[in-house]
Amino acid sequence: MTKPAVDLIIVGSIGIDDIETPAEKREGLLGGSVSYACAAASFFSHTGMVGVVGTDFPQEFRDTWSSMNIDLEGLQTVEGKTFSWGGKYHDNMDSRDTLFTDLGVFETFSPELPENYKEAPYLFLGNIHPALQLHVLEQVREPKFVLIDTMDLWINIAKEDLEKVISKCTMLTLNEYEAQLFTGEHSLTKAAKKLFDLGTEYVLIKKGGNGSMLFTKEDTFLLHAYPLDHFKDPTGAGDTFAGGLMGALCASGKTDKESIRQAMVYGSITASFGVEEFSLERLTKLDRDQIEIRVAEFKDMCKI
Amino acid sequence: MTKPAVDLIIVGSIGIDDIETPAEKREGLLGGSVSYACAAASFFSHTGMVGVVGTDFPQEFRDTWSSMNIDLEGLQTVEGKTFSWGGKYHDNMDSRDTLFTDLGVFETFSPELPENYKEAPYLFLGNIHPALQLHVLEQVREPKFVLIDTMDLWINIAKEDLEKVISKCTMLTLNEYEAQLFTGEHSLTKAAKKLFDLGTEYVLIKKGGNGSMLFTKEDTFLLHAYPLDHFKDPTGAGDTFAGGLMGALCASGKTDKESIRQAMVYGSITASFGVEEFSLERLTKLDRDQIEIRVAEFKDMCKI
Repeated sequence: MTKPAVDLIIVGSIGIDDIETPAEKREGLLGGSVSYACAAASFFSHTGMVGVVGTDFPQEFRDTWSSMNIDLEGLQTVEGKTFSWGGKYHDNMDSRDTLFTDLGVFETFSPELPENYKEAPYLFLGNIHPALQLHVLEQVREPKFVLIDTMDLWINIAKEDLEKVISKCTMLTLNEYEAQLFTGEHSLTKAAKKLFDLGTEYVLIKKGGNGSMLFTKEDTFLLHAYPLDHFKDPTGAGDTFAGGLMGALCASGKTDKESIRQAMVYGSITASFGVEEFSLERLTKLDRDQIEIRVAEFKDMCKI
Repeated sequence: MTKPAVDLIIVGSIGIDDIETPAEKREGLLGGSVSYACAAASFFSHTGMVGVVGTDFPQEFRDTWSSMNIDLEGLQTVEGKTFSWGGKYHDNMDSRDTLFTDLGVFETFSPELPENYKEAPYLFLGNIHPALQLHVLEQVREPKFVLIDTMDLWINIAKEDLEKVISKCTMLTLNEYEAQLFTGEHSLTKAAKKLFDLGTEYVLIKKGGNGSMLFTKEDTFLLHAYPLDHFKDPTGAGDTFAGGLMGALCASGKTDKESIRQAMVYGSITASFGVEEFSLERLTKLDRDQIEIRVAEFKDMCKI
């Protein structure tokens, strides 16, 4: 077995976003789950991106990823338009409306892994159709740890496919609402118990500004979110969190519960930086020292 | 100076509650901020209750308090009807409507402390009109630590009185919404900074099922809520939390930040039991050992 080209591979969407917050309106931003997740993971691990863009995709955005040392061998460029999405946040930034979704080349996306990605030990299946997630998973020879994310759309229209791929993953992540939708349980503790029946070992519930909860069959880990004075754009925060988590876990080389707790802290802190600006604007200026300083401060805040 | 009769005194409302949740409808329950707070504090400290009831108040409810070893010398009985309140919770129990409020003898309540309460070192000013809170505070000779709670009503109609009493208190507690209403700041970090200008040393933000945040001028403490499989009635959870906190802090004999963090854990865990049943039904069956077991389990959940 040769050393894999990358230690962690992440698949997901790549989009050009128009985003409106109460304070600001921005157009043509680099977005998508795999863009946020790879950017976050890149602080910790050598990460390969699996996704698709159209021929209209700006070179500048590729350069942004390359400057973060993200491996782009798994990035496909297909004749046509890049996926685009528009969203508008409400007053308190806790909820948003989708203004438009234009699938473009994402509609016929078939994620194929470069040969030297297939040995990667860590895999993050970002939010795309569960059949595509399964297709990626099946190409990886011996994954050590697989995290899967999803969204309400797939729970509603492709639940059977979703359950099938979850059964093959180590950890499932959902937000609070999705966990409740998936299981019909309001209590997240009860929801997690039902989700274990699908065959996954860990259930990670994201609660946005209220933190996150990691459920295992034996115990629970509760993590607050880092309190921010201000933030500009929560888009991609969940992907940044999960990407940072997987990057840090991959860097540890481990998959045990204690290592996952530490990795969650790194994911959460990376996400706390990400939302301070639009798109990857804060993450591209971030360095590992800044992350470590905030991690130390955060651990003090959580100490009892 | 003689030893005070009680170590902690708590003032607040006493009510007879009608409560409707999606699952159940209950009438004539023992309620009110001081009832919940004293019950919680009673697990840790010798606590005196300052409040008022009407001549219709059931002996059975007095017996409940006495069985918890709550000192009732500061409880007034006045000719007339006890304060009563009716509330209906919405589907997810995150919000509620007030169905009725009947002030009764609470309307003319003037809290007078028994002579031997005036030396108490710890004081919790539960949610009543700020002018009454001030009247209580002025009767205590040398309080070591004073916690004040309030509500949106007083922020809206008696802000000047409220600011005056807050300036004399060690710690202010508010829920998330009240902190935002009080300061006009959405960010709780920014809200806390503005609240410090009123003269209090600590700002404790309650976030219900999402935990709590303690702000000091130097640092922040983040505490999750204990995750419950089920709960029946969130009424009084904030009072139970604050009462348990003050009881545990009083038992420590200290007022430093580390002791406050530990006391918050005890308050939070006591509240997690309280919401498992209506009124004081769970707290009257609770013992200190059960609290300690859950505290230990909870600390494991928060460990990073």
